[in-house]
Amino acid sequence: MSDIKAALRAQAIETPSWAYGNSGTRFKVFAQRGVPRDPYEKLADAAQVHAHTGAAPSVALHIPWDKVDDYADLAAHASNLGVRIGAINSNVFQDDDYMLGSVTNPDPRVRRKATDHLLECVDIMDATGSDTLKLWFSDGTNYPGQDDIRSRQDRLAEALAEVYDRLGDDQRFLLEYKLFEPAFYTTDVPDWGTAYAHCVKLGPKAQVVVDTGHHAPGTNIEFIVAFLLREGKLGGFDFNSRFYADDDLMAGAADPFQLFRIMFEVIRGGGYTEDVAFMLDQCHNIEAKIPGQIRSVMNIQEATAKALLVDREALSAAQAAGDVLGANAVFMDAYNTDVRPILAEVRVEQGLDPDPMAAYARSGYFEKIAAERVGGNQAGWGA
Amino acid sequence: MSDIKAALRAQAIETPSWAYGNSGTRFKVFAQRGVPRDPYEKLADAAQVHAHTGAAPSVALHIPWDKVDDYADLAAHASNLGVRIGAINSNVFQDDDYMLGSVTNPDPRVRRKATDHLLECVDIMDATGSDTLKLWFSDGTNYPGQDDIRSRQDRLAEALAEVYDRLGDDQRFLLEYKLFEPAFYTTDVPDWGTAYAHCVKLGPKAQVVVDTGHHAPGTNIEFIVAFLLREGKLGGFDFNSRFYADDDLMAGAADPFQLFRIMFEVIRGGGYTEDVAFMLDQCHNIEAKIPGQIRSVMNIQEATAKALLVDREALSAAQAAGDVLGANAVFMDAYNTDVRPILAEVRVEQGLDPDPMAAYARSGYFEKIAAERVGGNQAGWGA
Amino acid sequence: MSDIKAALRAQAIETPSWAYGNSGTRFKVFAQRGVPRDPYEKLADAAQVHAHTGAAPSVALHIPWDKVDDYADLAAHASNLGVRIGAINSNVFQDDDYMLGSVTNPDPRVRRKATDHLLECVDIMDATGSDTLKLWFSDGTNYPGQDDIRSRQDRLAEALAEVYDRLGDDQRFLLEYKLFEPAFYTTDVPDWGTAYAHCVKLGPKAQVVVDTGHHAPGTNIEFIVAFLLREGKLGGFDFNSRFYADDDLMAGAADPFQLFRIMFEVIRGGGYTEDVAFMLDQCHNIEAKIPGQIRSVMNIQEATAKALLVDREALSAAQAAGDVLGANAVFMDAYNTDVRPILAEVRVEQGLDPDPMAAYARSGYFEKIAAERVGGNQAGWGA
Amino acid sequence: MSDIKAALRAQAIETPSWAYGNSGTRFKVFAQRGVPRDPYEKLADAAQVHAHTGAAPSVALHIPWDKVDDYADLAAHASNLGVRIGAINSNVFQDDDYMLGSVTNPDPRVRRKATDHLLECVDIMDATGSDTLKLWFSDGTNYPGQDDIRSRQDRLAEALAEVYDRLGDDQRFLLEYKLFEPAFYTTDVPDWGTAYAHCVKLGPKAQVVVDTGHHAPGTNIEFIVAFLLREGKLGGFDFNSRFYADDDLMAGAADPFQLFRIMFEVIRGGGYTEDVAFMLDQCHNIEAKIPGQIRSVMNIQEATAKALLVDREALSAAQAAGDVLGANAVFMDAYNTDVRPILAEVRVEQGLDPDPMAAYARSGYFEKIAAERVGGNQAGWGA
Repeated sequence: MSDIKAALRAQAIETPSWAYGNSGTRFKVFAQRGVPRDPYEKLADAAQVHAHTGAAPSVALHIPWDKVDDYADLAAHASNLGVRIGAINSNVFQDDDYMLGSVTNPDPRVRRKATDHLLECVDIMDATGSDTLKLWFSDGTNYPGQDDIRSRQDRLAEALAEVYDRLGDDQRFLLEYKLFEPAFYTTDVPDWGTAYAHCVKLGPKAQVVVDTGHHAPGTNIEFIVAFLLREGKLGGFDFNSRFYADDDLMAGAADPFQLFRIMFEVIRGGGYTEDVAFMLDQCHNIEAKIPGQIRSVMNIQEATAKALLVDREALSAAQAAGDVLGANAVFMDAYNTDVRPILAEVRVEQGLDPDPMAAYARSGYFEKIAAERVGGNQAGWGA
Repeated sequence: MSDIKAALRAQAIETPSWAYGNSGTRFKVFAQRGVPRDPYEKLADAAQVHAHTGAAPSVALHIPWDKVDDYADLAAHASNLGVRIGAINSNVFQDDDYMLGSVTNPDPRVRRKATDHLLECVDIMDATGSDTLKLWFSDGTNYPGQDDIRSRQDRLAEALAEVYDRLGDDQRFLLEYKLFEPAFYTTDVPDWGTAYAHCVKLGPKAQVVVDTGHHAPGTNIEFIVAFLLREGKLGGFDFNSRFYADDDLMAGAADPFQLFRIMFEVIRGGGYTEDVAFMLDQCHNIEAKIPGQIRSVMNIQEATAKALLVDREALSAAQAAGDVLGANAVFMDAYNTDVRPILAEVRVEQGLDPDPMAAYARSGYFEKIAAERVGGNQAGWGA
Repeated sequence: MSDIKAALRAQAIETPSWAYGNSGTRFKVFAQRGVPRDPYEKLADAAQVHAHTGAAPSVALHIPWDKVDDYADLAAHASNLGVRIGAINSNVFQDDDYMLGSVTNPDPRVRRKATDHLLECVDIMDATGSDTLKLWFSDGTNYPGQDDIRSRQDRLAEALAEVYDRLGDDQRFLLEYKLFEPAFYTTDVPDWGTAYAHCVKLGPKAQVVVDTGHHAPGTNIEFIVAFLLREGKLGGFDFNSRFYADDDLMAGAADPFQLFRIMFEVIRGGGYTEDVAFMLDQCHNIEAKIPGQIRSVMNIQEATAKALLVDREALSAAQAAGDVLGANAVFMDAYNTDVRPILAEVRVEQGLDPDPMAAYARSGYFEKIAAERVGGNQAGWGA
Repeated sequence: MSDIKAALRAQAIETPSWAYGNSGTRFKVFAQRGVPRDPYEKLADAAQVHAHTGAAPSVALHIPWDKVDDYADLAAHASNLGVRIGAINSNVFQDDDYMLGSVTNPDPRVRRKATDHLLECVDIMDATGSDTLKLWFSDGTNYPGQDDIRSRQDRLAEALAEVYDRLGDDQRFLLEYKLFEPAFYTTDVPDWGTAYAHCVKLGPKAQVVVDTGHHAPGTNIEFIVAFLLREGKLGGFDFNSRFYADDDLMAGAADPFQLFRIMFEVIRGGGYTEDVAFMLDQCHNIEAKIPGQIRSVMNIQEATAKALLVDREALSAAQAAGDVLGANAVFMDAYNTDVRPILAEVRVEQGLDPDPMAAYARSGYFEKIAAERVGGNQAGWGA
């Protein structure tokens, strides 16, 4: 049990800066009180998640949303708040130029612009000390025939190679895949196989990131996790939860059993280390922003605790014996355990409140930002 | 063949006013040149679709997007353009009040506001001469436990009853269903069964509208069409096309064979009459607006022509004989026929250009609106 | 807590006779040692599930698989074993005559044969004292055009009406729906809406049965449960579990959170009574038969215990307040509780072993049947 | 046009020997009149498909179903019938030993047995002159925890390596993937990425085969085709058609537009050569066997003809110009063309009847085999 507690104490889950702004669907972005107006305020909110959970020490930036004049100053601000800058996310989808794609656009001028943006993100990594670039491309097509599938792969490969070459010795990029949306017919990186194939060709500084919300119905995500770990190509996770498509719900909200199975494969495959980044990358449209992130962090912690509880020796023995029911029972025994008491103990041992949600609610932080953050432009999609 | 041509000449497909404005996904709404700034300009664009196809004589309005001071004047404007006002669509999803639902919201004040909006839409029907109210509710929940599934049905039933009672003798409403989005866990009218059950209780002026883009993967839509026609409860279609979710692609773009099968069931079930409304209700994010609607109309016409070509006598004989391959062959023979020549003939007989896409391109209309519609606020989501 | 325990003690879950025979996929039926050779031996195995769980007092029969000369004798045999005959399942899919359908077959001779079989099943209900007929039809088509969708509904309605009229005063039938398989293009009862519409027309003795494994990807099953209970048309469940299609896994094995949500809607909707039948209807291909059923029963009990633990007062308050995170937290608090200790207590209070799986393993029953049941024809698909 | 005709004349589509036997679903295998009793009779039926289409010159064998004492004699028999032996399919799923897997089984004895079977299939390749081994593994698990996902990959890799090393200089193997079934939780080769990664490691004699019926809902198969061709790893196709899961319908029956898009990518990617095998690998449960294969061959020919008709120059110009509607129109123009007249001409030029279905029906072959093949054991699943 002390091993499990130690493992839980060591867990770090990165939250994304945009999670603290307004968000929504194509039908409506709902405005909430107290949301940040700039990256500095976003970091302050992210620091609250860490203050109450002890498990969210870093914050991902999204460029251009989080562009500032002085990145060193932003990093220092983070440090003062008790957090640090995590991955740099390069957004190449919110410009009219990108209507038909960014790095895969048929127009070479647009491709150049998009690739330059990616290179600028590496500059920001240098300036902030970030070691991870996260690449997600909205690129694809809406109609059969609209563009040439294979030529778009050529263009993608060319842009990735240029960015790869620009990476410093201690830097890497993570290539994200997604089944669909915003493209509706083809997506240029639609599945793990595509991301994997590109990363293998590029080399060790290119890895795959698994967003748990980005798969076709019925896809077995833990299989992909196990496979990528076996290949040394799993770079991290976005722990998005979904019932239908890319619903961006709180981690573990839709299928906590799946999250447990994924965490088990991470641990079993030797991925429970700093090399595999645990990240959130989701917007919460209708619930409060900061507690939504706290709950996501807690849900991941609970899935992790359960996965750590699996009696692997007994499991292996049952598996080797072909004991289907016995092996499943060992696995489910861990899942069915209520791990909230263990996590409460871990928190108390870290000097934290055992109940982060209640502690945040009592803190008065929300009332403070709701009162202070009046006027200005609330951060959100596009800001 | 003359029967088929007569049937094709009689076909009327309604286009929606919002199709002519800007649209996009949650990631980005792309601005296009020449898009309308108000409902009058939208009607002018819709009239172009009718001018070149002869098959799009009516235009659906969306309230509040198309609110004007004088609806009689708007209707007269339509008439001058050679079209008329079709269904009134009641949008109750773009107000912060509707974050947790409109007519199913737990807050009675919000429910009252939403229902009043629906009643106002009936007033607009009276003012414009529209006989059809289209009801789609974005209502639902994002998380298990968030609200009570059954209480929301009670609230929905109450609102529907109030609107039903307000309908005039020659008016009806069509209740639309959709699997998900923008709600991500439950949707209050998620499938045809839910819409059907409510409509049966309300009476003959309540009917189901099938949006062909709103089903779970694998759903057999033509079965639903056949079933609803048998029950006398099919009110109409939104001929949205999709590969994944509610992708809002041009009608027939993703699966032309499915559109053919649907049109066959419409005809076979006696639904090829004015009682079943053929409507488009989709946004085209990356292609030109007016030709996108023209192509959608043409795709429906082609599917209809093929469906009309099915040799129903031979089909019935093969079906009765249990001749699986023979029956399928009769069906496929119609689908595999190139019906574009027939449709070109029909157009010429109507005094139209045989190629609506080319005729529109030659007309100079786009260049005209692109030059004239400068300044002002372009219509789009929320306008 | 005493209320919860009382509710748990009252729960009865029916197991199906065919679960104790051999089964598999189209690729291979795997033979296991000790499987029954006749309905009497099947009942003996089912009685073991009840003996160790105290929660499986009835056994569904499947006709013609379980045809015997003397049904009164079979019922008496069940009684001697401590169980009773439950629902009668009418299998009309394992005869070459049914290749193109049973009650919806284009050939009236085959329809007559199939309907006669259903009527015979009502005779068997009379002879065994069963009050429930379960109707599942494999009927459908594999190819577009193969048969007329609507005519098949006419034939279905005609057969259902004849069976309905034959039912005694205290008898009912449950109509099952299934998305697909073995039919691959249309299925004649593919969704709850179809089953519901037929049952509404027939009257109160016709109800819908929800097989939790029979839905399109993404379908929200608890919504259907809530809806059918509101309409008074939910007759029961087959608690099949699946990751992909109709996988027939142990109840709750694939998505225990979903099973909890379903049980919550049953309880909230007033369906936790004798009027809603809790049934298993699944084959276990690779695991041992009897413990597979025991585990299924236990999984349902655990989901039920969690659903009973939901603090409904707190939930309603949070829902009414629009507190998304608060309402979800109340709901999840129950789900995250480890209810195995409560269930162990309930069992001990009933004079049972707290661990049914271990007790069965210790009982020596398997070794006994494996030794005794040598020779003869093992029961399975088709036997 | 003469180029197109030449390309169509060159097309060869392999049919599988098991297609001529009885088949069905897990619910029922329907017996048909006249089905073969041995591999010799299967080849005779396959030769009929070639005789009437001129496009099915080879026949895949399935071992152990098609085991014979003298493979050279079988090959000579094929030659006498005007066809030849194509791919050797290794079936390692119909033995009780394989209940928990074949080459990935936790039991080393079973793994050895399975791998030996694969090696025996290479012996049969040598004896028959076949150059292609097709590997499909039903291996996987039904329950979380049942076996170790990663260890199964290790075992798979080991078996594949042993078989790879055994291949002769002019031999290759094709590794098939499938989302699910008969395994219901994990499948050891579930997607193209898994097959691709193994093949890349093994070398040029290992390639991926795409079964068009084996994907998750929403998967864009033509993307996979384009990607694998770009990587030089596309070995061939099984042109199975499906609405739901692995439905094994006639090629192109469910989505002819998809088949066209796939064939377009084959041609565009340089895959329309002997290096990419066009195969059928499907059972037809309810329709006549030989004409079902003829129709499948014809459907592929029609999709190919349409794909060859695409005006690639016009398409590229529209794509380069970012003309979404224009590019789609070029693509759809080819699809909407009725290519049956071209194919009829090609057949006549080859000395064939322009209508293979009618010619087969007239030939009297079915009446002959129905009369002659009485007694014996009909071939089917397991035989």
